[in-house]
Amino acid sequence: MSNQLHTERLKIIPLGGLEQIGMNMTAFEYGDSIVVVDCGLAFPEDDMLGIDFVIPDVTYLEENYSKVRGFVITHGHEDHIGAMPYVLKKVNVPIYTTKLTMTLIEKKLEEHDLLQTTRRKIVQFGQSVNLGEFRIEFIKTNHSIQDACALALYSPAGIVVHTGDFKIDYTPVFGDAIDLQRFAEIGKKGVLALLCDSTNADRPGYTMSERTVGAAFERIFSEHPSQRLIIATFASNVDRVQQIINSAAKYGRKVCLEGRSMVNVIGSAVELGYVDDSAHTLAELEELQNYPPEKTVLVTTGSQGESMAALSRMAANIHKKIKIMPGDVIVFSSHPIPGNEKAVSNVINELADIGAEVIFEDTHVSGHACQEDIKLIYSLVRPEFAIPVHGERRHLLAHAQLAESLGIPKDKILVLHTGDVLEIGSGSARIIGKVQTGGILVDGLGVGDVGNIVIRDRQRLAEDGIIIVVMTLEGGTGQLLAGPDIVSRGFVYVRESEDLMEEINRTAIEAVEGCLEKRVRDWTVIKTEIKDQLSDFVWKRTQRRPMILPVIMETEL
Amino acid sequence: MSNQLHTERLKIIPLGGLEQIGMNMTAFEYGDSIVVVDCGLAFPEDDMLGIDFVIPDVTYLEENYSKVRGFVITHGHEDHIGAMPYVLKKVNVPIYTTKLTMTLIEKKLEEHDLLQTTRRKIVQFGQSVNLGEFRIEFIKTNHSIQDACALALYSPAGIVVHTGDFKIDYTPVFGDAIDLQRFAEIGKKGVLALLCDSTNADRPGYTMSERTVGAAFERIFSEHPSQRLIIATFASNVDRVQQIINSAAKYGRKVCLEGRSMVNVIGSAVELGYVDDSAHTLAELEELQNYPPEKTVLVTTGSQGESMAALSRMAANIHKKIKIMPGDVIVFSSHPIPGNEKAVSNVINELADIGAEVIFEDTHVSGHACQEDIKLIYSLVRPEFAIPVHGERRHLLAHAQLAESLGIPKDKILVLHTGDVLEIGSGSARIIGKVQTGGILVDGLGVGDVGNIVIRDRQRLAEDGIIIVVMTLEGGTGQLLAGPDIVSRGFVYVRESEDLMEEINRTAIEAVEGCLEKRVRDWTVIKTEIKDQLSDFVWKRTQRRPMILPVIMETEL
Repeated sequence: MSNQLHTERLKIIPLGGLEQIGMNMTAFEYGDSIVVVDCGLAFPEDDMLGIDFVIPDVTYLEENYSKVRGFVITHGHEDHIGAMPYVLKKVNVPIYTTKLTMTLIEKKLEEHDLLQTTRRKIVQFGQSVNLGEFRIEFIKTNHSIQDACALALYSPAGIVVHTGDFKIDYTPVFGDAIDLQRFAEIGKKGVLALLCDSTNADRPGYTMSERTVGAAFERIFSEHPSQRLIIATFASNVDRVQQIINSAAKYGRKVCLEGRSMVNVIGSAVELGYVDDSAHTLAELEELQNYPPEKTVLVTTGSQGESMAALSRMAANIHKKIKIMPGDVIVFSSHPIPGNEKAVSNVINELADIGAEVIFEDTHVSGHACQEDIKLIYSLVRPEFAIPVHGERRHLLAHAQLAESLGIPKDKILVLHTGDVLEIGSGSARIIGKVQTGGILVDGLGVGDVGNIVIRDRQRLAEDGIIIVVMTLEGGTGQLLAGPDIVSRGFVYVRESEDLMEEINRTAIEAVEGCLEKRVRDWTVIKTEIKDQLSDFVWKRTQRRPMILPVIMETEL
Repeated sequence: MSNQLHTERLKIIPLGGLEQIGMNMTAFEYGDSIVVVDCGLAFPEDDMLGIDFVIPDVTYLEENYSKVRGFVITHGHEDHIGAMPYVLKKVNVPIYTTKLTMTLIEKKLEEHDLLQTTRRKIVQFGQSVNLGEFRIEFIKTNHSIQDACALALYSPAGIVVHTGDFKIDYTPVFGDAIDLQRFAEIGKKGVLALLCDSTNADRPGYTMSERTVGAAFERIFSEHPSQRLIIATFASNVDRVQQIINSAAKYGRKVCLEGRSMVNVIGSAVELGYVDDSAHTLAELEELQNYPPEKTVLVTTGSQGESMAALSRMAANIHKKIKIMPGDVIVFSSHPIPGNEKAVSNVINELADIGAEVIFEDTHVSGHACQEDIKLIYSLVRPEFAIPVHGERRHLLAHAQLAESLGIPKDKILVLHTGDVLEIGSGSARIIGKVQTGGILVDGLGVGDVGNIVIRDRQRLAEDGIIIVVMTLEGGTGQLLAGPDIVSRGFVYVRESEDLMEEINRTAIEAVEGCLEKRVRDWTVIKTEIKDQLSDFVWKRTQRRPMILPVIMETEL
């Protein structure tokens, strides 16, 4: 590993995750070896109408396919594994990760019929894998999903530590606390760069232990002995569900899981032995009917107010099997993710109106390190360079300030943008180029077939609808055979706007006849004329800008 | 006022405002007299695509036009005055309110050319107006806009107190503190019912004085002597702007207002003498160029991340005159209104990326009473009945709990729904009926021409776009003369989906030819056939559900 033999330098290339929460993916390149850390999706922005999710553009990996040695995945959240099947279809290299994470990835591969063709290796904490010029060590961390890990990437140019998403939990519900000793040990060897979670870098103090939520559950169970409990949380938070099961066992209640992803993830966790249900507290929904409501707990999806999730359907009284009753206690064991506040608020209003009691306090802790936790990691690892990752721009920049406050020189704190090619070695680091990156929109089965133009059309259609003008011209003569007829959707309620629609029709006829009189035969000109005259007229009459779409047909000669 | 002469009972009919924040409007009816308190709009829900705002259905007032004696307005926020011009076009009766509120209403009337035809009377605090069987007294309160009032409605059936939106500010920036003595005095007379603001009914404690924000501004000014300050806040918060002007004067900075509504409202307030700029601190944008950045303050709209507001345009670097520079200090003197969190967060990210410093802490206080303040009002007024108003369902229900904790019997706490007709007198209150109410959508110049069908079409168009199938049949014979042709918008990027579009075309042709071969001449049948076959095919291929719109034309015989 001496530098004399290795004149190459290490490249770090973020392929996503530095402009938003989500789409986490970073390429590490040395010589002929590329290792990719994480492969996540992002949820669509509000203006990406109709889009299911967004995956990173991996053109760089495709162009360097022969160098790519494998995917190394830090944990099983969608923003770290969600793009896996899509990316594997382009770059099929082995996946290395921990047990639960692999199980969750495998469910995705199965859906995409990729299970047979994808090489996979489960790694234990403390183990390493050799991928070309890299050796990658998996280090135990804590997070809001089990089996999360940090990575130490050993390269001839030095050691890079990547925390993944993490928190420091001295008293985790399942398994060990984060392996702080190992962080320190690696730090002692000398770490070139630390890529560290920025999600909570603007929050002072420490992140509380998951166990504090257990204490809150205990209180809620003991204070509501005669009411049904319905607890909404994230399907992937296995430890949270474990704590509900623990309290339920203690207070003699049966627990039923509701919502597809909840049943899926917790089911897997039970199978893997990550959930302890030795008291046989878990029950099927049908079995619950044998118990009085106050002896039951429903654990459900929908803590973010998602319109199709189980809790939202219960609140709107359209859930097929569960009806919220006055006196039910609904616990939100979650915080609204930015952008979901209004949806959550709407669900709470519906629940309140039914007469349910809604509890929010002390029933959630973050899965991400706060400022003091981040400082601890820095103090153990003592990296030469700080590279904030995971977060929106403001989180990365708050993280940079934090690093500076710890004495890291400003020129050794690198706030990168997605696509930057950072060349780094002891003593120096610089951005030497830019690779193609971006978000590819996934809509149903379509990957990338919805781009800016389609999105802009959807935005326009959403705003004011569409007016379609159709007409038929005679082939050869160009004479008007039929139309122009007007059809509209999403513009006005036509039955109560007959006058307006008639005037629009007249305007269209005038535009067409004007063209035909002037013997205009170029369809583009006719269409432009119709568009211009109609949009002027419609704007004046309604101050709206519907899409105006002229369609000209021609009979065969 | 003895009950022997008046066998009628008082009716309280909320026409909006009890299911959401906004659209505040309540009718009070006794005998042949109706008085309407407030006339607000609501901002559209996320799924009301393309809608500008929503106004209440006032069918009940139209049907009882001859009884309606006037509008009494509590303060000048949009959710209390925004529907005024629209409602006046249907029910033109006089408006009674305070000076600033009237000025803001007059601006709206002017835009709608209603100024000449609307009778208006400015009322002083402490004054009363007689409207039919009612006498209405205006009582000074505090709120996040000046000239807010509570109302005491004296009717033969008893006294009703309506707080409007209010807070208790012992040290207001401008004018007097809320007239607690008068609340107590009226309470002593015996109050039948209290309609009280619920916005913060779920927040413990007291609402802080507006002056505390002034202290925060002082700190920010003194700690940033060498940076430009840009402060975003609500245009209507005159006192907030006054405090910025005060700090600026003290620290020798010039203040410039930016954003249309900011210039409008503060301009009016200056004219009315509600803003003290005796130090000539306010300046035009052009004048600011004569001062170094650190001697200037911009007060701007956009504190909610609204995409077209001044701050958002600055952050996106598309503001025509102002460019954010690294080192600028941006103060958000506001809290995000639920639903705007993501938009605000996006603006902060953009600002952070430019290198601006963003400050949030201590720079905003609420304009609404918290739990302890509400308790104080109850203790002064001591109403027989409690009727929570202003808020979402959960706020009203939290307020009801609060009233109960103060000893008001459960059956005297009335959580109404919009449209309920509450008949109330000493000793009894009951809902005796329901009047027509609802939200009328305003889109551009159109009022009510966009309803559920149009909105659903817009949602569908927004989600997956539209596929239009056009064809021309020969009149009489019904033979296919042209088409079917396919045009789509918002579905896929057509140039890169030629195969798919071709297959869709083929499916359409098959559907049409199938019909024609079977000599189907009924257009409805043909259209249904096209829709069914195309949507099946498109779903299988793409898992999307675009709107499918067949258009059949016919040549003349």
